Amino acid sequence: QINHKRFLSDISSFGQIGALSGGGVARLALTDSDRLGRDELVSRMKALGLRVSIDNIGNIFGTRAGRLSSTVMTGSHIDTVLTGGLYDGTYGVLAGLEVIAALNDACIETEHSITVASFTNEEGARFQPDMLGSLVFAGGMSVETARATADKSGITLGDELDRTGYAGAGHGPDHIISYYELHIEQGPVLENENTDIGVVTGVQGISWSRLTFRGRSSHAGTTPMHSRADSGLAAMSLITRLHTALKDIPEQLITCGSFQVLPDLINVVPHITTLTIDLRNPDEQALKTAEKILTELISDTEKAFNISVKKETLARFDPVSFNGKLISQIEKIAHNNGFTARRLCSGAGHDAQMIARIAPAAMIFVPSVNGLSHNIAELTYPDDLCRGTQVLAEAILSDAL
Amino acid sequence: QINHKRFLSDISSFGQIGALSGGGVARLALTDSDRLGRDELVSRMKALGLRVSIDNIGNIFGTRAGRLSSTVMTGSHIDTVLTGGLYDGTYGVLAGLEVIAALNDACIETEHSITVASFTNEEGARFQPDMLGSLVFAGGMSVETARATADKSGITLGDELDRTGYAGAGHGPDHIISYYELHIEQGPVLENENTDIGVVTGVQGISWSRLTFRGRSSHAGTTPMHSRADSGLAAMSLITRLHTALKDIPEQLITCGSFQVLPDLINVVPHITTLTIDLRNPDEQALKTAEKILTELISDTEKAFNISVKKETLARFDPVSFNGKLISQIEKIAHNNGFTARRLCSGAGHDAQMIARIAPAAMIFVPSVNGLSHNIAELTYPDDLCRGTQVLAEAILSDAL
Ligand SMILES: NC(=O)NCCC(=O)O
Ligand SMILES: NC(=O)NCCC(=O)O
Repeated sequence: QINHKRFLSDISSFGQIGALSGGGVARLALTDSDRLGRDELVSRMKALGLRVSIDNIGNIFGTRAGRLSSTVMTGSHIDTVLTGGLYDGTYGVLAGLEVIAALNDACIETEHSITVASFTNEEGARFQPDMLGSLVFAGGMSVETARATADKSGITLGDELDRTGYAGAGHGPDHIISYYELHIEQGPVLENENTDIGVVTGVQGISWSRLTFRGRSSHAGTTPMHSRADSGLAAMSLITRLHTALKDIPEQLITCGSFQVLPDLINVVPHITTLTIDLRNPDEQALKTAEKILTELISDTEKAFNISVKKETLARFDPVSFNGKLISQIEKIAHNNGFTARRLCSGAGHDAQMIARIAPAAMIFVPSVNGLSHNIAELTYPDDLCRGTQVLAEAILSDAL
Repeated sequence: QINHKRFLSDISSFGQIGALSGGGVARLALTDSDRLGRDELVSRMKALGLRVSIDNIGNIFGTRAGRLSSTVMTGSHIDTVLTGGLYDGTYGVLAGLEVIAALNDACIETEHSITVASFTNEEGARFQPDMLGSLVFAGGMSVETARATADKSGITLGDELDRTGYAGAGHGPDHIISYYELHIEQGPVLENENTDIGVVTGVQGISWSRLTFRGRSSHAGTTPMHSRADSGLAAMSLITRLHTALKDIPEQLITCGSFQVLPDLINVVPHITTLTIDLRNPDEQALKTAEKILTELISDTEKAFNISVKKETLARFDPVSFNGKLISQIEKIAHNNGFTARRLCSGAGHDAQMIARIAPAAMIFVPSVNGLSHNIAELTYPDDLCRGTQVLAEAILSDAL
């Protein structure tokens, strides 16, 4: 039985780390505020009697020993976007700690160990790809490659791990019985359908790229329109055309979230423009079609605007299906508690999709008010937060006992 | 008779102030490198025996006394864009000094004084509007308003004048007989027609605005396309539609040179997007039509994308016609020297258009290689630089003697 009051207060106090003046938090991966969050997490883990271990990519594991060394794992991340909310990621990690606290309260010993994990750079807002820490943990990327990843200003993830003191020598559990991740939905489905619990069947495919447009800077007042090589206009035209071209692909999402022009001056035609494109689709074939259309539009744009475009892939993850047994388990627990539940596919990427490569994994969602996330106004009601944690606790226990 | 070798070497040594490693210069108005340029200019003026005076907006005037206090003025500016060339502005100022040096060499006394002026923040790249120093000097804007103008990071022009020590107590000449400004064309006309000298008849109209789009930030993976308020997409759509809509207005130029999205992250729909629009046309009615279409597209965009747009005017100057007598004078001098010459309207804004409010004014252009300016590759050949300076010298002398 989880302690609602303690849990809600633990979430709210954690939200003060990296708090923004207008609400919300900024804990970009491996910045000073993320480090403060990590320090606080480690100290909370230790206070609960967990054995803490940091691996070479900065993932934090807190383990409550069972009779066996095999473990049931739960977790998520505590990094956020630059203007993030209190719940994305943090909720799942702190819910894991609440489950531990509740087991401690009830003096329950388990057969398998229980591990609460917090993965490095899940958001992908500072370093790409997203879910980087869990990807490395699952063997999908080498530590060397991951450490060499640089942020916008050229600082590498490896240097930041060293600077913050989170390039550990420990490692996570190697025999994972199952992995449950509890998360806010971050979308509108559960709220719209007035449903308590989302039983997540998988995660849609993600395709991230960075495009660099090179034209020629020139004078805004003297350069005839026909003799320009305007990298900014070319980029804007590409993005608007891409939206039109992908309109009819079912469930296709397109986002251009980052965009910079150089030299960024009112009377200078921009010579370099850099932008990112985030394409997502639950269907791999559809996602491939979207990518193909993007490639075609790029070469169209190069010709039409007399510029060159370089495309780099920042992340590419196929759609993932979670473990059928775990999915049914979660659904049963929700119903046994009298909660309404429905199956749904996740729009956001999650660490669970990486752990699914090495262990049975599944996720539990709770509703997001107005479906809003990656926004300082992100909110999940206390009752929903507690319902989700109750389901998590029972799912973990049913495997660990 | 001007001294070619001295003049070319003076230009090239001045280009070392704020030099960029890849070529070109960065002397944004009232930055440290602009200050270094100002210091160097003042010391060159003093070395030529000029009386130097700095007015309250930082304009620098170097005067060679004549028998009367009335003056023939020449000048331009030494501030540049962030990735500028060696000639834009600086050429006209240093040519003025070369004319003085040549008069000194020849021990020529003049009836009227001769003043070489360097005006503050002509480029408008850091502070808007452009031609701010000459605008204030000509009485078109109060010093208070000009000092309160802030750059992108909120630093005011007044604070920068104080910091650099260029908020002077002196003033420029008050009886200006005529004003001649020598400048590189910055466009392709003279080069394309293989013409030595451009006799500038006026300057086209300039309309600068800043648009701020406010939408709602949300998650790139979970927010359905139809429920987004994507400020970035709205802005890109507006700019591309504006280009299409203004295509048929003769001689209409459109530039979106500055563009920022917030929070500028790959997986967050941007909530705020800020951009600038530079509209120019030699015909005032046509420019008004373009502005009207922009206003209409803004309200279309607000509706179509569920966002709000704020529009601020950063600069608005009607087309300007230069003094007919001065224009003919320049043309005659060019022909007398055996130079080919043609009349043309300036695409770029210039200090001369402000001085034209208070005195007879005109301009002399020399060819720009590939019509390129506001680019580090900006170039005018030595022979052209010298031809222009010769015409300037004779024009000044014919009025000042
Ligand atoms: N859950 C979450 O916001 N993950 C960040 C990665 C993504 O953009 O989906
Ligand atoms: N000459 C020149 O580049 N002036 C800057 C103002 C403008 O953009 O026209």
